[in-house]
Amino acid sequence: MVEREHGADPHDRIRERMPVLASYAASSVQPLAGTTVAVASHLEPSTGVYIETLRDAGATVYCTASNADSIHGDVVEHLDAQRDVNVFAAEDMSEDALDRAQRDLLGQDLDVLCTDGAELLVKLQSHPDLSPSGIDGVAEQTTSGVTRARAMETDGLLDAPVFAVNHTPMKHWFDNVHGTGESALSNVMLATNTRLAGRAVVVAGYGYVGRGIATKARELGAQTIVTEVDPRKAIRAHVDGHRVLPMAEAAEVGELFFTATGNCHVITDEHFDRLQDGAILCNAGHSDVEVDVDGLAERADVVSDIGEGLIRYRLPDGRAIEVFADGTLANLAGPYSQGHPAEIMDATFAAMFVATRELAGQGDDYTPGVHQLPTHLDREVAEKKCEALGIDIDSLTDRQRRYLDTWRREDIVD
Amino acid sequence: MVEREHGADPHDRIRERMPVLASYAASSVQPLAGTTVAVASHLEPSTGVYIETLRDAGATVYCTASNADSIHGDVVEHLDAQRDVNVFAAEDMSEDALDRAQRDLLGQDLDVLCTDGAELLVKLQSHPDLSPSGIDGVAEQTTSGVTRARAMETDGLLDAPVFAVNHTPMKHWFDNVHGTGESALSNVMLATNTRLAGRAVVVAGYGYVGRGIATKARELGAQTIVTEVDPRKAIRAHVDGHRVLPMAEAAEVGELFFTATGNCHVITDEHFDRLQDGAILCNAGHSDVEVDVDGLAERADVVSDIGEGLIRYRLPDGRAIEVFADGTLANLAGPYSQGHPAEIMDATFAAMFVATRELAGQGDDYTPGVHQLPTHLDREVAEKKCEALGIDIDSLTDRQRRYLDTWRREDIVD
Amino acid sequence: MVEREHGADPHDRIRERMPVLASYAASSVQPLAGTTVAVASHLEPSTGVYIETLRDAGATVYCTASNADSIHGDVVEHLDAQRDVNVFAAEDMSEDALDRAQRDLLGQDLDVLCTDGAELLVKLQSHPDLSPSGIDGVAEQTTSGVTRARAMETDGLLDAPVFAVNHTPMKHWFDNVHGTGESALSNVMLATNTRLAGRAVVVAGYGYVGRGIATKARELGAQTIVTEVDPRKAIRAHVDGHRVLPMAEAAEVGELFFTATGNCHVITDEHFDRLQDGAILCNAGHSDVEVDVDGLAERADVVSDIGEGLIRYRLPDGRAIEVFADGTLANLAGPYSQGHPAEIMDATFAAMFVATRELAGQGDDYTPGVHQLPTHLDREVAEKKCEALGIDIDSLTDRQRRYLDTWRREDIVD
Amino acid sequence: MVEREHGADPHDRIRERMPVLASYAASSVQPLAGTTVAVASHLEPSTGVYIETLRDAGATVYCTASNADSIHGDVVEHLDAQRDVNVFAAEDMSEDALDRAQRDLLGQDLDVLCTDGAELLVKLQSHPDLSPSGIDGVAEQTTSGVTRARAMETDGLLDAPVFAVNHTPMKHWFDNVHGTGESALSNVMLATNTRLAGRAVVVAGYGYVGRGIATKARELGAQTIVTEVDPRKAIRAHVDGHRVLPMAEAAEVGELFFTATGNCHVITDEHFDRLQDGAILCNAGHSDVEVDVDGLAERADVVSDIGEGLIRYRLPDGRAIEVFADGTLANLAGPYSQGHPAEIMDATFAAMFVATRELAGQGDDYTPGVHQLPTHLDREVAEKKCEALGIDIDSLTDRQRRYLDTWRREDIVD
Repeated sequence: MVEREHGADPHDRIRERMPVLASYAASSVQPLAGTTVAVASHLEPSTGVYIETLRDAGATVYCTASNADSIHGDVVEHLDAQRDVNVFAAEDMSEDALDRAQRDLLGQDLDVLCTDGAELLVKLQSHPDLSPSGIDGVAEQTTSGVTRARAMETDGLLDAPVFAVNHTPMKHWFDNVHGTGESALSNVMLATNTRLAGRAVVVAGYGYVGRGIATKARELGAQTIVTEVDPRKAIRAHVDGHRVLPMAEAAEVGELFFTATGNCHVITDEHFDRLQDGAILCNAGHSDVEVDVDGLAERADVVSDIGEGLIRYRLPDGRAIEVFADGTLANLAGPYSQGHPAEIMDATFAAMFVATRELAGQGDDYTPGVHQLPTHLDREVAEKKCEALGIDIDSLTDRQRRYLDTWRREDIVD
Repeated sequence: MVEREHGADPHDRIRERMPVLASYAASSVQPLAGTTVAVASHLEPSTGVYIETLRDAGATVYCTASNADSIHGDVVEHLDAQRDVNVFAAEDMSEDALDRAQRDLLGQDLDVLCTDGAELLVKLQSHPDLSPSGIDGVAEQTTSGVTRARAMETDGLLDAPVFAVNHTPMKHWFDNVHGTGESALSNVMLATNTRLAGRAVVVAGYGYVGRGIATKARELGAQTIVTEVDPRKAIRAHVDGHRVLPMAEAAEVGELFFTATGNCHVITDEHFDRLQDGAILCNAGHSDVEVDVDGLAERADVVSDIGEGLIRYRLPDGRAIEVFADGTLANLAGPYSQGHPAEIMDATFAAMFVATRELAGQGDDYTPGVHQLPTHLDREVAEKKCEALGIDIDSLTDRQRRYLDTWRREDIVD
Repeated sequence: MVEREHGADPHDRIRERMPVLASYAASSVQPLAGTTVAVASHLEPSTGVYIETLRDAGATVYCTASNADSIHGDVVEHLDAQRDVNVFAAEDMSEDALDRAQRDLLGQDLDVLCTDGAELLVKLQSHPDLSPSGIDGVAEQTTSGVTRARAMETDGLLDAPVFAVNHTPMKHWFDNVHGTGESALSNVMLATNTRLAGRAVVVAGYGYVGRGIATKARELGAQTIVTEVDPRKAIRAHVDGHRVLPMAEAAEVGELFFTATGNCHVITDEHFDRLQDGAILCNAGHSDVEVDVDGLAERADVVSDIGEGLIRYRLPDGRAIEVFADGTLANLAGPYSQGHPAEIMDATFAAMFVATRELAGQGDDYTPGVHQLPTHLDREVAEKKCEALGIDIDSLTDRQRRYLDTWRREDIVD
Repeated sequence: MVEREHGADPHDRIRERMPVLASYAASSVQPLAGTTVAVASHLEPSTGVYIETLRDAGATVYCTASNADSIHGDVVEHLDAQRDVNVFAAEDMSEDALDRAQRDLLGQDLDVLCTDGAELLVKLQSHPDLSPSGIDGVAEQTTSGVTRARAMETDGLLDAPVFAVNHTPMKHWFDNVHGTGESALSNVMLATNTRLAGRAVVVAGYGYVGRGIATKARELGAQTIVTEVDPRKAIRAHVDGHRVLPMAEAAEVGELFFTATGNCHVITDEHFDRLQDGAILCNAGHSDVEVDVDGLAERADVVSDIGEGLIRYRLPDGRAIEVFADGTLANLAGPYSQGHPAEIMDATFAAMFVATRELAGQGDDYTPGVHQLPTHLDREVAEKKCEALGIDIDSLTDRQRRYLDTWRREDIVD
């Protein structure tokens, strides 16, 4: 007889959608044996699978959250029950509590740090007493974090190699463009119960994340407007079919806004004056500083929670401006958030995994400072993902390899 | 001082997004004064606004649900507290309880029926004792309901005019293509935590709903496959860029399936044998009969609820097939469902409103049977929606009107 | 040894791309035996193949052009050499000469007329003396022609059945949307040596042709603007992602214009004042009256032929406005025009063929006036096109057929 | 009275569409005064405008063609009549004659070489006697040319700096993706009189050019298939919505093929066996070696020119394979070719111009070898193009600049 039963492990469905991590977890070799790895990221189910993978590869893992808002209670509970995994986070913890938890984590003896937004790196600078001796290196997962690590490098503050995992082709396309693009839009659309077709959607910043959101919104029928500070990205947005306007003009026509610049105060005082009644502001960048929510709150007469993650700011002139998820990451926050699709995080965390493995094994080969992830490691992840997806590709023939390697081509094709 | 307070009325946000209904509600004329209207639809917030609009236009409203799964408790509660509105439904009611509630509603003295899937019409046939005398007419909202009403007309069973509100250009494009297209995809994507980009998505049926889902999925990067029984729609799907295959072949390559045919057993025994491990089946048609869920359950060894609205059927050969929301409407069911965007339902319910108004006032002008909604009423809704959206259009000049009206064109353009 | 030789028959390549016509031509049955058929259409290669098909099916064919600008000399030459085909046209003939040729053609004893833009029908009205006695019927190929035939019907001037072949689903989607959409854009882009990506493209009219052009331009990265006089089409354009503006406003922002309204003077005096310097005006409607070229010429200081089919009108205020192909059909005119892809015309002419066959055989079954092409004939064409394209579709099961036919569905699915 | 007159200069229309070059030509400063520049590129009208711009900036220009097939006679004639411009090319010249002309050109005293496909660089290696002493540097315009220059660098053969102008963001997006993407498709579609909607289009190589063609074909309704040798590009093609297959499998399902790999024999013997009857092969890469046309000719029984740039190869088993433009660049060859849109070449040649200016002025600052074009020069071009297009963008505020430069962000946003 057939009965409905709840799945034994709530992470099973997620794990099945992460076949590349599964292949690393299942390997009989344990490349991380004896290594301690710290992970500070969004504590959602796919991160849980990543942490288990590190552990299955031999590591002892200390994990915490990168943002207080994206901690899933059931993930914390699940990880707490795992061997060789130590959790420094709890659902609904305050910013202060998270700060203390991160500091506790940094007090451990750590070999490799896996960071998101470079949070742990910054914390180390602020608390030099915490600094674990002998860190082999850092694997950083986000655009914002890489920017920040480079600023630290300029200030001469990096004393270990930092892999810019975010900047690999695989990460950019799978995660930033398609992962964030799809999930930010579906999360906000569902929460706000609106359509994209025909809407005026403003996207600030035409990097990978902005491009994913703007392009997908346009494909779904939105009238998209892009704001930029780099003329080259502005031209690209233009030929990709978006209107390009300064934010001061975009503010006047937009209905739905997404910031994705990695910078602060992208929508701020001068724009609040110009926004239309009913405009909805969302952020898809790492930090909650792109929309100047505090500035908006200061000028509002009434602030009301209208449900589904939306706060409405009623301005003295009668206009209502709505902010989604307090300006935190639109695809990870709000009542319905599921984070990035697990199969996308599979590629991202696989890249983090090979970066961690490289740092644990050959960390000494790299000078302190920010490094690109070596191409052969990015290819390794891509090959495994192709295999998981059943994608078969060509190989160069001998003749083709010779053709590429030489400038004397006539001999080869005749 | 500024404080965060919860909005007084949970329907306010929805109401603001339905400006056309608002304009009818705000009118000083009450075209429905003295009329009793029955509404059987999905009891979600936008339906609540529609019911209030009928009431504000002078009607006494009796409302019930068209499906037991799509009843929102807070909507029921809200409507219960309204004057001149009588609710025959409750959240989590059983199919049997809904059946009794619908019969109770039909026992009232009713002038116009607003139906969804023709449920009330069918019920009237099954219980001829209930039939209210002197119904002015019926406004039907869905493709499935119109098909059904036509079958009843063929059997000589209609004794009142039925407006095929679903079949107006406004309804088709706003609601079926864009409304269902967007919301079915974002609801399923969020629930299943998957991406569309690169997925093999099979859409059964290339009517308005199927076209919306298939086209939007393709725009988001899916490899789409369409199945059809009409060679003309098959050709259209082909030139729109979809692969067209019989379901028996599509079953072997699809990862995510949406049925939108208005027919039964579109995915059934012969296809279950061919589905890939991990295939996810969803339905976007009115009735839950398109995916043969019972047939799947019968052959499964283990049936488990894996969360997020997904039931997993493990077959004897080891393959797992997942069904979303038990094969009920993918955009209205599941844990995150918000239904169609309110601004889309604004147009659909505005068309239902003018249909109801026409039936209440000039119902006698129409013979029993299925009728198209008169063009001038569809234009009225479109004009009001254009106004609400700030869309300004051209008018024909005198010269242009003469040009269209004559076949002797040389005189006009010279 | 291998040598390069020119193909024996310049129409061979076209014929190979018209497999549905080929199947009618190859049939041993000759349904048109003893019938005389007049064809007035664009005398391009695919029309030549159509004319031969009619002949192979047994007809004697009298053919002429619908427009003087779209006569291909080699097609005329080829047809002249065919048995049972009589040509009333010559390349580069004047409008007057074409008028005389059409009148000569109408002086023949004709059974069925195949018309484009209803040209022959109008001519018959203007010259009642010519009217052949006993015409079985007319098959009309274009939107404009059907509009015109309907105006004649209103004036009580039709004394034979007219099949609105244009209005079949097959014709609309294959020919108007995809055929004209693709060929108008590629013809103008090549001639004007410009890109679409990022351009402001204005499309007047959101019927099938307008929709094809606007949607494809948007997909290629254009910022599209649609003008309309029907609020329902305006809403549809809006949700399809186009900006909707009155022409007076569109004129100020557009760079490239396509008219597709079937009406006259869509871009005229009031708009010429507002066009930007360098604006390019093109027409995709049947008649060359949509852009008021005469009005533009009157106000220009200098008119120069700048090559590639473009005439530049220099206005007194210094602005230059360019008109493509004198406002005639953008996809059929200009120096590079190839007309619609042959495989698209295969479907259109196949629909014309079955319409002609029906009129020749069962013409008496139809009353004088405009008729839809019977659905089973449109399906016949679609089935043959599916076969030619290798597209395999599903059939309704018995259970599914019963489900559609009844309103008592519970019995069927349980 | 108004008369039609032919434009005085056939290049005027092109020149108007190249505003960035025009701004350099109009400058009173002559940064290239006293410099001799060699240009070897496709001698089409936009290249003519570039050559005049170099001259107007003070240079003496020696120009030749990069390919014998893409020489426009009227461009040669026009340039021949210009002061300080020396032409080493003629329409319809043989490969041998072009080789002699290039060698003659290299015999001049040259400061900067502007190359396409690195043709001149290779020629210099093959004829060391020709090598002009004291070349300041080379600006290379294509992907293929950069690959080739890098192979020469590896072999220790570069003794001057080579700017990889092709590899700038501006060039990639404007020229490769959108320019080649649009023009290759519209050129082939017009020539072959086919539609893209519904066609199976195979694109070999998912670099910038391949991405442009594949994406635009897909947007127009094609069923696209991509072949790759890099698993990272394969994944990207997959999530962008293309099927990814090895060429051996793609050969069996494709109807229309575009090669864009920069490699040789991408479609060769093993694929000829598998191609469908009627397959059309086109190349969009720099060299005509991607489709193994000689190999195809060898196995063909009959080779016939079927018009419009298509050669048909009839194989012994009866299948016909058609090759467009002998496998030379699909967007520059064939009977209707207009090359890239002038406004796109405006950006590409502006980048070539600033590269030339930098090499002439600060060439000594760069070591021999391949260099990226400095970012500030690419930005200069982008800023001028934005200005020409009327695109206005934002600037970083002081606060935002500080935010980017520091890792201590809390101080800045609070």
